[in-house]
Amino acid sequence: MNELTLVLDNTGNTPLYEQIYQYIKSEIKSGKIECKTKLPSSRSLASHLQVSRSTVDMAYTQLISEGYIESVPCKGYYVCEISLLYDINIPKRTKKIPKTKTVEERLIDFSPNGIDLEYFPFGTWRKISRSILNEEKKELFDSGNYKGDEGLRRNICNYLFEARNVHCSPDNIIIGAGNDFLMTILCRLMKQTRVIAMESPTYQRAYQVFRSNDKKVVTVKVEKDGIDVESLRSKNADLVYVMPSHQYPLGTVMSIRKRNKLLKWANEKDERYIIEDDYDSEFRYHGKPIPALMGIDNTDKVIYIGTFSKSIAPAIRMSYMVLPEHLMNLYEKEISFYSQTVSRIDQAVVSEFIENGHFERHLNKMRSIYREKHDMVLSNMKDMGKMISIYGANAGLHIVIKFNNGMTEKELIDRAHNAGVKVYPLSEYYIDETYKERNAVIMGFAKLNHSEIKKGIELLKKAWNGG
Amino acid sequence: MNELTLVLDNTGNTPLYEQIYQYIKSEIKSGKIECKTKLPSSRSLASHLQVSRSTVDMAYTQLISEGYIESVPCKGYYVCEISLLYDINIPKRTKKIPKTKTVEERLIDFSPNGIDLEYFPFGTWRKISRSILNEEKKELFDSGNYKGDEGLRRNICNYLFEARNVHCSPDNIIIGAGNDFLMTILCRLMKQTRVIAMESPTYQRAYQVFRSNDKKVVTVKVEKDGIDVESLRSKNADLVYVMPSHQYPLGTVMSIRKRNKLLKWANEKDERYIIEDDYDSEFRYHGKPIPALMGIDNTDKVIYIGTFSKSIAPAIRMSYMVLPEHLMNLYEKEISFYSQTVSRIDQAVVSEFIENGHFERHLNKMRSIYREKHDMVLSNMKDMGKMISIYGANAGLHIVIKFNNGMTEKELIDRAHNAGVKVYPLSEYYIDETYKERNAVIMGFAKLNHSEIKKGIELLKKAWNGG
Repeated sequence: MNELTLVLDNTGNTPLYEQIYQYIKSEIKSGKIECKTKLPSSRSLASHLQVSRSTVDMAYTQLISEGYIESVPCKGYYVCEISLLYDINIPKRTKKIPKTKTVEERLIDFSPNGIDLEYFPFGTWRKISRSILNEEKKELFDSGNYKGDEGLRRNICNYLFEARNVHCSPDNIIIGAGNDFLMTILCRLMKQTRVIAMESPTYQRAYQVFRSNDKKVVTVKVEKDGIDVESLRSKNADLVYVMPSHQYPLGTVMSIRKRNKLLKWANEKDERYIIEDDYDSEFRYHGKPIPALMGIDNTDKVIYIGTFSKSIAPAIRMSYMVLPEHLMNLYEKEISFYSQTVSRIDQAVVSEFIENGHFERHLNKMRSIYREKHDMVLSNMKDMGKMISIYGANAGLHIVIKFNNGMTEKELIDRAHNAGVKVYPLSEYYIDETYKERNAVIMGFAKLNHSEIKKGIELLKKAWNGG
Repeated sequence: MNELTLVLDNTGNTPLYEQIYQYIKSEIKSGKIECKTKLPSSRSLASHLQVSRSTVDMAYTQLISEGYIESVPCKGYYVCEISLLYDINIPKRTKKIPKTKTVEERLIDFSPNGIDLEYFPFGTWRKISRSILNEEKKELFDSGNYKGDEGLRRNICNYLFEARNVHCSPDNIIIGAGNDFLMTILCRLMKQTRVIAMESPTYQRAYQVFRSNDKKVVTVKVEKDGIDVESLRSKNADLVYVMPSHQYPLGTVMSIRKRNKLLKWANEKDERYIIEDDYDSEFRYHGKPIPALMGIDNTDKVIYIGTFSKSIAPAIRMSYMVLPEHLMNLYEKEISFYSQTVSRIDQAVVSEFIENGHFERHLNKMRSIYREKHDMVLSNMKDMGKMISIYGANAGLHIVIKFNNGMTEKELIDRAHNAGVKVYPLSEYYIDETYKERNAVIMGFAKLNHSEIKKGIELLKKAWNGG
């Protein structure tokens, strides 16, 4: 057969060999060239199509490598049985018509979730990604260490030492695809521990993960300087989950007195441990830096959890956990079969981001940006005077506002909504009815720009004052 | 003060503004320039250093953005209180001296794990990654859909339809960071189901994940054409884990009769389900393609799990699970709070890899490469005659060899090891002592090249024949 007559496009948009390859492939797939048919020799096809022989050879090589044809020595090229071949037709996406914004989307949204991505160092990120992929390090595509790659663990270890005063070994660090995953693994590890104490209000997702992992959760009050250790002692729990640097959602900082009391509680029994979620510790705007609880613990009682979701970007899906020696040994023995959940390429990018000082720069830059927003929120609310009390200021990406004018949370949120502003209920962060407050709202500021913050607070003041 | 006297390097290696920025930053960090000190105006520093004013402005802007100095309107630039700033010193890694290979590393290793990365399309991968990062799509760095991005789920849905005959909706697909994670989530979802049936031998990691998630595992025999459904019926299990396309490690293909029987079993009770792990279904070398069990199920009883670990690369850490409607509703209601575990950038890369036909090409190419290796293993073993029986051929990345010459597994492995070859024990894949065979080894071939396969089998034959 020599009827492989295709019209070649010489504009250079698609290489000639690619056009020949695509043509023959589609003729085979459609059945127009049948199984076991002999193809023309590359020499004769080249002369027929008026292209160089190497062009036809390249097309044939591609067809062989993908299983469409085979080369039979001394005989020529034959079409294969292709019923086993993949032929995946992916319908092209139709372009979406951009929707007009709904009323909900037009609100000025003081959401406590999300970060400001306007200043994300895309250029640096791209450069690092490119250089890592350029190295053609095959091993990066192979499975790596179950705890995470050693270089990344070493860099996190150094970061924790320099920034959080945590002394640990890279061997005790476990990388994982987000806090939820690491906490799930932790629950699997600490199967014997049936009851866990949490402050109320608290970080709802941690609560849900514990519940989903069959832990019984008991609630403990948060005092002005952190968890009420006496109340904790009265509960039958051997594990407690706290956020000493900046309690979520109240923003409370745990005092050094409380930290010592809590460590003392943990040391009263062998099986007791403290989970320290060092949630948004990176962003502290005024006052002295506050080291991690793990940093002052020399009794190996703290399980530390940190994340890059806020400090780099939510989509990165990378958290880390530092385990005390005893639990690390148990981990190695019992559940180290769980494979690593973060891609090695992502691990390499973050590792280099830290190692070459980009993380330090980025944190300092973002803190200065968030501080301006934080200060702006506070100064614009100043004239609300005694009507409100503000909690959790000076750190993090949100504040809590309690109202002393008799307005309920529902009323506050409804009025804000009617004025075109979204604020969030504090009550939803409580695990049960105990201690629940119903006169406070949460306002995040990370995602809003200066003029949105100004406009939003102006609208809120009108809405709330007109009561 | 005007003593900011630094020697500028004009070679162009480091931009001038960067040198000025670095110099002032280090002077502030070391305390040589004290807090609250006024810096020279940009005009006077520019003239002092003989550089353009915009160069100094850029250096000052960088210092402001990172929180080292602040600009006080009408007054000038002042050094900030920097005790809160991050200063992360990451010790540079010392270059590792390449180790000489240990005896263990010099063995020809017929490991059943790992894939051939020699033909990984690095170029395409890099190109896609680059184009995605170049778009500066900010939303890719923000948190996405908890099930995974819609575009990727749609592409997987199409792939499953075209290649595995599975009809499902993208809404029922959940992306996750590896099979272990998805199976953990599945255990959380199916809390009520306490007992799970597994074939023995089976995929050990699945067994470990189930055990770690408090499931009781009961074992069922594998017959020549798949799981023994009568034996399953005698156990008190409402959930069964199977690999119908290519049982691991035996390589058994489940017959259509068995598939129907199994579906019938599942339909006898509302709460019964089948987990189909479609492990390495992508690589089938001879005979007709075998559609997924889910493809013939119109009773919504199959939970499908697939992965890109073998078909793309282990390091990608991306699997997917298709849930029946009832379980999907439960998922939405009960555990959709778990955040997505795969980075959105990785999701976008894989999505484009599928959508633009690269996945199809890659699968066809790899199958042809693996088929050559597979055929080579079999043809080189042909002259071992009746001494062995080979199981699980014609698909997958390994075979099982049973010995009829009285040699035990231990003897087989030891003799191979002494000859410089590593083969693997089948017995380790059994969950308990029932059905355990002790005269068989597993041999994977994906990672070895042709000459290693030839050499390895030659050595094995000598080692095993000399008995």
